[in-house]
Amino acid sequence: MLNPRNSLNFSGGPGVLPESVLLQVQQAISAVPEVGLSILGISHRSDWFAAVVAELEDNIRRLLGLSSEYSVLFLQGGATQQFSMIPMTFLHGKSQPAEYLHTGYWSGKTLPEARREGSIKVLWSGADTGFKRLPRNDELEFSPEAPYLHYISNETVEGLQFQRVLGREDVPRICDMSSDFLSKPCQAERFALIYAHAQKNVGPAGVTVVIMRQSLLNYARTDLPGFLDYRTQMQAHSIYNTPPVFAMYVVLLVTRWLLHEIGGVANMAHLNQQKAQLLYRLLDNSDGFYRAHAETPDRSLMNVCFNLPNLETETRFLQAASAAGFSGLKGHRAVGGIRASIYNALTLPAVEKLCEFMDAFQRL
Amino acid sequence: MLNPRNSLNFSGGPGVLPESVLLQVQQAISAVPEVGLSILGISHRSDWFAAVVAELEDNIRRLLGLSSEYSVLFLQGGATQQFSMIPMTFLHGKSQPAEYLHTGYWSGKTLPEARREGSIKVLWSGADTGFKRLPRNDELEFSPEAPYLHYISNETVEGLQFQRVLGREDVPRICDMSSDFLSKPCQAERFALIYAHAQKNVGPAGVTVVIMRQSLLNYARTDLPGFLDYRTQMQAHSIYNTPPVFAMYVVLLVTRWLLHEIGGVANMAHLNQQKAQLLYRLLDNSDGFYRAHAETPDRSLMNVCFNLPNLETETRFLQAASAAGFSGLKGHRAVGGIRASIYNALTLPAVEKLCEFMDAFQRL
Repeated sequence: MLNPRNSLNFSGGPGVLPESVLLQVQQAISAVPEVGLSILGISHRSDWFAAVVAELEDNIRRLLGLSSEYSVLFLQGGATQQFSMIPMTFLHGKSQPAEYLHTGYWSGKTLPEARREGSIKVLWSGADTGFKRLPRNDELEFSPEAPYLHYISNETVEGLQFQRVLGREDVPRICDMSSDFLSKPCQAERFALIYAHAQKNVGPAGVTVVIMRQSLLNYARTDLPGFLDYRTQMQAHSIYNTPPVFAMYVVLLVTRWLLHEIGGVANMAHLNQQKAQLLYRLLDNSDGFYRAHAETPDRSLMNVCFNLPNLETETRFLQAASAAGFSGLKGHRAVGGIRASIYNALTLPAVEKLCEFMDAFQRL
Repeated sequence: MLNPRNSLNFSGGPGVLPESVLLQVQQAISAVPEVGLSILGISHRSDWFAAVVAELEDNIRRLLGLSSEYSVLFLQGGATQQFSMIPMTFLHGKSQPAEYLHTGYWSGKTLPEARREGSIKVLWSGADTGFKRLPRNDELEFSPEAPYLHYISNETVEGLQFQRVLGREDVPRICDMSSDFLSKPCQAERFALIYAHAQKNVGPAGVTVVIMRQSLLNYARTDLPGFLDYRTQMQAHSIYNTPPVFAMYVVLLVTRWLLHEIGGVANMAHLNQQKAQLLYRLLDNSDGFYRAHAETPDRSLMNVCFNLPNLETETRFLQAASAAGFSGLKGHRAVGGIRASIYNALTLPAVEKLCEFMDAFQRL
């Protein structure tokens, strides 16, 4: 039995995991059934763990429909490490600028790390308009000369999500999908590199999934230390040095849940749409009591960000929500307000409960 | 109740954790008592996690007797990342070579990573003599000009451990203590930097403890990306970006166990000596049936490495041990043979059982 508060955890991340996964993890702390030892004491060089990595890679391939032209890696250091590794590998020493979008708090973090390594061109920025919307296609001019295009598919802090794939087919697309990874089909093979830390949709903090078209390495720098070299990690099947065994095992359990309990990412997307619709409909029908942060076409299905009439009401809202059993609703420290993160493992009944609570709170 | 096989897990790492810790972790997967949420779904920006980091730092300070001149950091990427970060930070651009010792498999891994960043001098190498012993003081000549001295206190693969502190007081000592960290008092303040990944003595894979004398940063490079910059990590109290929350929580539980159940590192050392003595005495009294790899003065209290008369007998030994409930006794793939790793959490009764088994196996 798990603590029932987990099911009402709307945290922006580390976020809620499926109940069936948590129950299996609890068992694995005593012993992984196939091994008879605690998951925390099993060698990463064991046959069992090699099978974990192989199944995990394969599950992600199946969920996203990836061909053998792609490698699936599991690295440490979070998305932040990728903010640096990508320009260190693919921008350093290049003559043309890489293209970046500045669509919110997190893409803002990618820019200085890229500028350390070379020249970049920021194609569009929402900074002056408070990151309330994403660029339209007619506002973006992509160059065929760019070493790559980098953007973030879902801005967790502002609750903005691209509902389309950006950029040119002849320039490598690199996308941070940390906060909507495996939440819907994503046309993965149109990207050269996708990365996602686990702690939103797929597992605990401490592991980052990197999906890379192998041919991208033709443009990669070759003089980086092993742990910063995608080639080394690829050759070692993510076991170049001791990987985060526990975190990877949990991600494996989540991918099994997605495949066998949910039935794939299309089903997951359908559920996620239903959840988001309930919340956005409530915001839109609240006569301005709840004001969504994002403009309608760019609203995130993962992070529903909104404000109440004033700070005092927002504080009362958070207190009442906490008393009613809800967690994690406070907006990110960078923007304030309320954020309901409704990642894959947050259930439809939990969102319904939140809507009931919000409706009642407005009527108080 | 935990699976009883855990208590007989002699794995070289990830290794066994104390039973009382595993029971608390199991509970925390459902809910951390103070929070009411699963440890896997708690934000790293929560007040609770800030308190975890503060207590964890403080516990390590208490266990090692560290003054406020030292910072305690929790980083990702394992010891391998430190193999690179150290020369990137303290060797890059220096005119004098850093001094390294080559005492076994793992210190061998540090050399090429250092050479990428600058010039090094290998003061002593045991490569030609099969890493059966460590250098004596009269074999080592330390220069006052070196930017730092780097060595590994315990070679996990060969079972060699320094029983003294090396080097000069006027040259920063940097030591990889991954496999004997918190297993005994270590005169921590004689070192400028100590690092240890968690997965031997203090927790799961995925977090590395770095202890640094703050003044060492006066000699540090300042143009590295944030995640590779000790300064950034220090200023952010290890929460520069999302840290490995779960792994750090487990390390906290292990430090509480060391402080409150074991009673500190001196008590731990006493227990570890008893454990190692039992095994080495058995090897020495086996009429050559069990042959210790390391020469007597340099034998490790953490990893007892030995051979049997031939490969076939070793294979039978491992099979019989597994059937009797023992795990993890196979030697590292680089050297073969048998390795009994007896980290902090491996109990004296477990070592006694192994000795009984080995005694019986010899008489078969």
